[in-house]
Amino acid sequence: MEELDLIIIGAGPAGLAAGIYAGRRELKTLILEEKIAGGAAADSPLIENYPGFVSISGRELMDKMLEHCKAFGTKIHEFEKVNKLILNSKTKIVKTGKAEYSAMAVIIATGSHHRELGVPGEKEFRGRGVSYCATCDGPFFKDKKVVVVGGGNTAAVSALFLSDLALNVKLVHRRDRLRAEETLFRKLQQKGVEFIWNSVVKEIKGDQIVRSLIIYNREADEEMEIETDGVFVNIGEEPNSGIAKEAGIKVDERGYIVVDGRQRTNIEGVYAAGDVTTCPIKQIGTAVGQGIIAAEEAYGYIRQPYYYKR
Amino acid sequence: MEELDLIIIGAGPAGLAAGIYAGRRELKTLILEEKIAGGAAADSPLIENYPGFVSISGRELMDKMLEHCKAFGTKIHEFEKVNKLILNSKTKIVKTGKAEYSAMAVIIATGSHHRELGVPGEKEFRGRGVSYCATCDGPFFKDKKVVVVGGGNTAAVSALFLSDLALNVKLVHRRDRLRAEETLFRKLQQKGVEFIWNSVVKEIKGDQIVRSLIIYNREADEEMEIETDGVFVNIGEEPNSGIAKEAGIKVDERGYIVVDGRQRTNIEGVYAAGDVTTCPIKQIGTAVGQGIIAAEEAYGYIRQPYYYKR
Repeated sequence: MEELDLIIIGAGPAGLAAGIYAGRRELKTLILEEKIAGGAAADSPLIENYPGFVSISGRELMDKMLEHCKAFGTKIHEFEKVNKLILNSKTKIVKTGKAEYSAMAVIIATGSHHRELGVPGEKEFRGRGVSYCATCDGPFFKDKKVVVVGGGNTAAVSALFLSDLALNVKLVHRRDRLRAEETLFRKLQQKGVEFIWNSVVKEIKGDQIVRSLIIYNREADEEMEIETDGVFVNIGEEPNSGIAKEAGIKVDERGYIVVDGRQRTNIEGVYAAGDVTTCPIKQIGTAVGQGIIAAEEAYGYIRQPYYYKR
Repeated sequence: MEELDLIIIGAGPAGLAAGIYAGRRELKTLILEEKIAGGAAADSPLIENYPGFVSISGRELMDKMLEHCKAFGTKIHEFEKVNKLILNSKTKIVKTGKAEYSAMAVIIATGSHHRELGVPGEKEFRGRGVSYCATCDGPFFKDKKVVVVGGGNTAAVSALFLSDLALNVKLVHRRDRLRAEETLFRKLQQKGVEFIWNSVVKEIKGDQIVRSLIIYNREADEEMEIETDGVFVNIGEEPNSGIAKEAGIKVDERGYIVVDGRQRTNIEGVYAAGDVTTCPIKQIGTAVGQGIIAAEEAYGYIRQPYYYKR
C-alpha cells in the first residue's frame, strides 16, 4: 500500500488547484481521477469568466492547470476510479480498481454529473442524437438542426457553440428568461438562436436516430412536436458524492457535501472543494478558490505549523 | 449624483473578479480604486500559484485581469479614493474626493496594507532604505546588501527576487522556520540567502540612508548589529476596513470584515471579498473566488431572479 501525505480525488479545477498548492507545500500528494484530468470544465467550448483569460476553451484552460500542477511535483493518476474510502481512523484509506493508498488527509473534489431529463427516448437515443456535452458531440451536427434544453450558463454556451456549426439552434427552457449571464443571452440573440420559453421536453422520438421532440408549453398548456437531429441536455448537475456519503461524510438533502468556511467536512482530516460541495456559486474561479483553501487547511492539519488553528 | 447598480471598492484580484462577473451580468458597475488597478498582488515580482499560470509577475497577471474586466463593460476609476459610505438605507451612497455615487449594492474589496515594524528609524528612513515592496524598490539595491524581514510567502518572494539583484540577502524571521511555501524555502536556500532565525528588528540606524539594523535574537537573548543598505519589511498585513467600519459594517477584533459563505456582511446589499475579509487563506486564487461569489450574490440581490434565495 502506497503511503502519501494527501490524496485528492478528482482532477477538475478544485482538485488541480489543491494539487498546485499541495505540491508547493511539498506534501507527498496523489490526485486520483476516474476519467482524464480537467473535469466538467474541460467540456466547455468557451470560458470567458475565469479571471485572467478573456476567452479560452475549457480544454486549453484545464491543460494549463494540469501542467501547472505537475510542475510542482504532484502526481496524477488518470483513469483510476476510487471505489471505497475508509475514513474512520487517523490514517485514511483509499481503494481504487487498481490499488490501495493511505494518507493523512483527503480532499474530495469529485465534481458533479449531468442531470438527465428522465423522459421516454432519452436513454434509448443516448449517443444517437441525445448528448450532454456540446464540445464533445457538437461536430457531429454540422449543418443539422439541434435543440438545447436548459437555461443556465452551460446551456447558453452550448447553444452559442452549436450556432456556429449547426443549421439551426433552438433553446428550450422551462422559464420565460435565462438564468445564464446576460452577456451570453445577448450573443445568442445575435446568432439567431430561437427561444422556446416556458417549455419542457416530454419525449424524444426517432427511429435509428433522433427525429423529433415532444415539447409541452406550461403557460399555454399545449404540446407540439419539433423536428430535430439532436438534443443537448444541459439542465443542471448532481453531485458525485456517493463514495463520500458511504464513508460517513455528511451531505445535504440534495447530496452536496457540507463544508465550512475552511472546506472541512464532518470528518477530521477530510476536506471537500468545488461542485461536489454546498458552495452556492459553482464556477471555475470559485472551485479554484476552494481547492486552494482545502489544500492549505490539509497542509496545516498534516504538518501542524505554529500558526495552524484546529 | 451618478446612479449605478453596483459599486465595487478596490481593484485588486477580488474587485476585478467581481467586476468581470458584474459586467457579464450587465449590471451598471463602477470600480473605485484609490491607487492604480491591481492591488497588493501587482506588487509581487513573481506569482507561481495562481492556477493557470505556472509563473507570471504580479503586474502582468493583474493587467490581464484588468483587461478582462474592461472587456465586459465594467468601468474603473483609478486614483479616486472613497472617503465615506452611507449604507443605512436601501440606496447606498459612496462619496469620493471627486464625486458622489449611488448604487443598489456595494462590494468592499479594499484589501490590506503592509504592517509596520514600529521600531525607531522605520518612519525616518522610509524611502531611504526602508521599503515594503521589493518589486517597487528592489532595483535601487543592485549589488548592495539587503535584509528582508518576515517569514511568509511575501517575504520569501521578496528575498528571492532581491537575490537576483543584490550582492547579499539576509532574511530575518522571528521563528525558527518559515511560514512560506516549502518550494520557496528550497529556492531561497539554492540562491544562498542567509537566514537569521528567532530574531526581530529592534532599530533601524543610518545617516542620510540606512546603514545597519539592530537585531535581537529571542532564543539566545542577544543583540547584534548588521550592516545593510536596505531593509524590506514583509511582516504581514492589516485590513483596509476603516471606512467600512465607520459605516456600520461589522469587523472582527483584528479589523477584518465579517462575511458569511455568500460574502454577505451584516448590512443587506453590502458584500466584502478578498484580503479585507475574515477568510483564513489570503491568496489571489481565493480572493478571485470570493469576488465571483460577491458579484453573483449582488446580482441576485439587485435583479431578484427566480432562483435567488434571500
